[in-house]
Amino acid sequence: MKIGFIGLGKMGSAMARNLLRAGHPLTVYNRTRGKAEALSREGARLADSPAKASRDSEAVFTMLSDDAAVAEVVFGENGITSGLQNGAAHISASTISVAFARRLEAGHRDRGQVFVSAPVFGRPEAAENKKLIVLAAGPTEAVERCRPLLDAIGRQTFLAGSEPWQANAMKLCGNFMIASMLETFSEAFAALRKARVDHHLFLEMMNELFGSPVYRNYGATVADEKFEPAGFALRLGLKDVRQVLELAQDFSTPMPFASVLRDHLLSGMAYGQENLDWSSIARVVAKNAGLT
Amino acid sequence: MKIGFIGLGKMGSAMARNLLRAGHPLTVYNRTRGKAEALSREGARLADSPAKASRDSEAVFTMLSDDAAVAEVVFGENGITSGLQNGAAHISASTISVAFARRLEAGHRDRGQVFVSAPVFGRPEAAENKKLIVLAAGPTEAVERCRPLLDAIGRQTFLAGSEPWQANAMKLCGNFMIASMLETFSEAFAALRKARVDHHLFLEMMNELFGSPVYRNYGATVADEKFEPAGFALRLGLKDVRQVLELAQDFSTPMPFASVLRDHLLSGMAYGQENLDWSSIARVVAKNAGLT
Amino acid sequence: MKIGFIGLGKMGSAMARNLLRAGHPLTVYNRTRGKAEALSREGARLADSPAKASRDSEAVFTMLSDDAAVAEVVFGENGITSGLQNGAAHISASTISVAFARRLEAGHRDRGQVFVSAPVFGRPEAAENKKLIVLAAGPTEAVERCRPLLDAIGRQTFLAGSEPWQANAMKLCGNFMIASMLETFSEAFAALRKARVDHHLFLEMMNELFGSPVYRNYGATVADEKFEPAGFALRLGLKDVRQVLELAQDFSTPMPFASVLRDHLLSGMAYGQENLDWSSIARVVAKNAGLT
Amino acid sequence: MKIGFIGLGKMGSAMARNLLRAGHPLTVYNRTRGKAEALSREGARLADSPAKASRDSEAVFTMLSDDAAVAEVVFGENGITSGLQNGAAHISASTISVAFARRLEAGHRDRGQVFVSAPVFGRPEAAENKKLIVLAAGPTEAVERCRPLLDAIGRQTFLAGSEPWQANAMKLCGNFMIASMLETFSEAFAALRKARVDHHLFLEMMNELFGSPVYRNYGATVADEKFEPAGFALRLGLKDVRQVLELAQDFSTPMPFASVLRDHLLSGMAYGQENLDWSSIARVVAKNAGLT
Repeated sequence: MKIGFIGLGKMGSAMARNLLRAGHPLTVYNRTRGKAEALSREGARLADSPAKASRDSEAVFTMLSDDAAVAEVVFGENGITSGLQNGAAHISASTISVAFARRLEAGHRDRGQVFVSAPVFGRPEAAENKKLIVLAAGPTEAVERCRPLLDAIGRQTFLAGSEPWQANAMKLCGNFMIASMLETFSEAFAALRKARVDHHLFLEMMNELFGSPVYRNYGATVADEKFEPAGFALRLGLKDVRQVLELAQDFSTPMPFASVLRDHLLSGMAYGQENLDWSSIARVVAKNAGLT
Repeated sequence: MKIGFIGLGKMGSAMARNLLRAGHPLTVYNRTRGKAEALSREGARLADSPAKASRDSEAVFTMLSDDAAVAEVVFGENGITSGLQNGAAHISASTISVAFARRLEAGHRDRGQVFVSAPVFGRPEAAENKKLIVLAAGPTEAVERCRPLLDAIGRQTFLAGSEPWQANAMKLCGNFMIASMLETFSEAFAALRKARVDHHLFLEMMNELFGSPVYRNYGATVADEKFEPAGFALRLGLKDVRQVLELAQDFSTPMPFASVLRDHLLSGMAYGQENLDWSSIARVVAKNAGLT
Repeated sequence: MKIGFIGLGKMGSAMARNLLRAGHPLTVYNRTRGKAEALSREGARLADSPAKASRDSEAVFTMLSDDAAVAEVVFGENGITSGLQNGAAHISASTISVAFARRLEAGHRDRGQVFVSAPVFGRPEAAENKKLIVLAAGPTEAVERCRPLLDAIGRQTFLAGSEPWQANAMKLCGNFMIASMLETFSEAFAALRKARVDHHLFLEMMNELFGSPVYRNYGATVADEKFEPAGFALRLGLKDVRQVLELAQDFSTPMPFASVLRDHLLSGMAYGQENLDWSSIARVVAKNAGLT
Repeated sequence: MKIGFIGLGKMGSAMARNLLRAGHPLTVYNRTRGKAEALSREGARLADSPAKASRDSEAVFTMLSDDAAVAEVVFGENGITSGLQNGAAHISASTISVAFARRLEAGHRDRGQVFVSAPVFGRPEAAENKKLIVLAAGPTEAVERCRPLLDAIGRQTFLAGSEPWQANAMKLCGNFMIASMLETFSEAFAALRKARVDHHLFLEMMNELFGSPVYRNYGATVADEKFEPAGFALRLGLKDVRQVLELAQDFSTPMPFASVLRDHLLSGMAYGQENLDWSSIARVVAKNAGLT
């Protein structure tokens, strides 16, 4: 299956590499050309616009940082919509808003193109090791057709529904689950540190109690305050929490935990932590308790 | 090692049974005699007061619902302090406040007795199956002496420090971690349900993402809204969250998540959910979103 | 000064009437014609589009419910921009978002028109009695020119700055101040009612303490739970709190009180209170405490 | 009417002075003798214990900082209870907890003494100028008997009920109302300052809108960040917010605004602001937004 891939950051490069390894002829595009060239040495063809990366592809992936970046690449000049053939699919792996997922679905439908939303869980290491969790939603036939591609980038593919935005709703709520865990650790650690109780020992207990690799990894990051390099930047975490709140707002659902997260991530922005890992929400919580 | 055990609710009975199985001669006391008699048939001796359950014991356990219940059994008429021999230990497995743990430590020390705090994580099933996680804190020599008893009731014993209250601080923060997870699930499920996205499917994804038995079990309870019978009553959950907030307050640490939990658990009390499982905080969250 | 007026709800009709009384020739437009006809009997001319209401006017007012309504009237077919003469002013008295105020400013500037933002404080009764507080911002010369019009509708005109959006930022923050007062009353009343302490007596004390007509009026509304007819609908209150949060978000400022307000107003929406007065946030707070 | 007065801080001294001016023979006691001597020069007799200040008095006032201080003076060695005659009244003007007010009522009743709770609103300047608002609760006959004393210290006396704690519940809720106003100003000012909108001008508008001297005075304090000298110390403000939360907790009432206040005041403690005015909650809010 001939495919295109647009957006070659840490996540995108790793995903594209796994698609290559699975034997799919791949055309790639990235705004800054350097990253594309690395993949070219591994067998990918280079395109100089999103349209060209889409032209001969049965499916074109995007893995970009936010709604605006995806909008530019899809609807902008020489964008995907102007290149993608009738019936071919755009697979968006980015974490985008529910509202924008609906707009993408309509935009492609109007042009006889297909839209599949397939956001993923996992950090760059997981992407490299084909350990991502993939949430796919879209027209059943299209999702089935793209299934081998999705299976090539992750350890498990969940079918989230027949409307693309449903996958985005789930992805956003999943990120909310992780962000809540970060805040929870942060608050517990702050209280224990101020009480002069060993918070690393507490983390060990929590690892035994929860038995979760996510707790283990993020818990260590928070306990050791290792917020660089960022696996997922705080400013992107804020974007996702805002989009969860927008989703909830559209359905008249209060989410007070999400509101606390938003407030703390905004403080993180105000403190200049936008490019630190989002687990640096712990630094905000610690500051609020007078810890430095 | 001759031991006493006071407080034979679901948790206490299971723990006492494991101590018997481990070969320790056991004297038990319970306010309502019926539960003690069940253990008597398995080899325990019955005492008719906490003092008598303590008299010949090298160590006496308490497993009771709150500070007040422990205070009555320890300092009340025919209480533990009046029965326990010089140098013998009181092992408190209850989830009590940090302030009260300090008071217990001082009260026993004044009488030449030893206090070990050893709160546990786990629901009644875990207690039966010797799967509890035990957090023990107290004078090193005493904790070492009691170690075989602690190992007899759980799957792992953590040494939390040389001051008993440290174990209680960790236990309270651990319960806060669980309560936060419950609220987080509740908010995500509420938003997804209102958006008509399948929240059971979302739970499956979270199980794959977090890989945690605690998430799996509590997540199912919340998703299915099975709040009876209560593994841990909401009113006890509120007590613990209040005690976390008191701990944090004593050390000038804001814990906004804990404040949200407190508010929602108070609503749960106001709605008559005091004896439902504390995961019924989800019902409060759902009501706030207009779900019934 | 010949003027136009678009948007003849309770607020707009009262304001337009005061402009007529001040002797300004007035042309009015309203989507549903009935309300316009009432003013026609008092001397206003009727226009059948926003463009026509703007054509011969030196200034045209809008008083509409939200950004979308203003956008339609300004930029839509036969909108204000297509009718307003070079150099003439659009005076927006609506409570709109800061982002949209910037868009309006740019949109008019591009067409050689002038934009003055002049949101107002006050309920319909205040509008009728020329008791509004007017916050005006825009190019100094334009604001000065419009000053007699602004003075004709309120008891005091504040000059909020030379950029129109500044008035909107202040107006939104002012509404946040009022909404916070409503929530504060709601929480205090709920606690006192549950403690069986007379909350009406408490209100009397607060009136003596604060000495504020706003406290007196809204306090009575909340204490008596008289949420109909709505002076200001809950759904509009939610809109404003959301816009405050957006403003704060753009400048990385946490506003936890605003987040609580948003959550409670969302519950109000979920409970079907969208058309009750926004002081019915008190009903949400009371429900959370189990009061009915 | 012969009276005693215990607790001669800024508030107490001013109140005692007004009682002297009203012609009541006064015996005073203060832990540090200096302040008592100032009053002695104005005609008060000095006592060297609370018991002696109570011995010949028909009523003895206390104006102290918290529950613990009142407990010491009432129930401690040579305390009020050991001096006060049968039928004589203890009038507590301190802001104490509801639970402790109940304990005081019972403690005095057991000894044939009468307890009247009469907390006050107003800062030291108001106390000097006899401008306090007095909330009195207790047995009707006793309150009537003490009425001339209460009227001598304030501008208005409210009868809050026949059970002393009711006055304390109202006083605590009143302080919550003020604290909420402080937080609200703080958040609005922070957002406006970051948006570079003139927050002093905003305050002027709010003064016109609310027309409240309390808003005017506290608003200026917050806008100008003049937190010293403290009219009411932050640590006492935290104490009151905690007591509001305890009251609400006893009646299963969530108060999310009070929870936010508590968290911000705890940050204030952690930042070393305990002796600044409680309006310095604004400094916490500003810090959270990255303002310094």
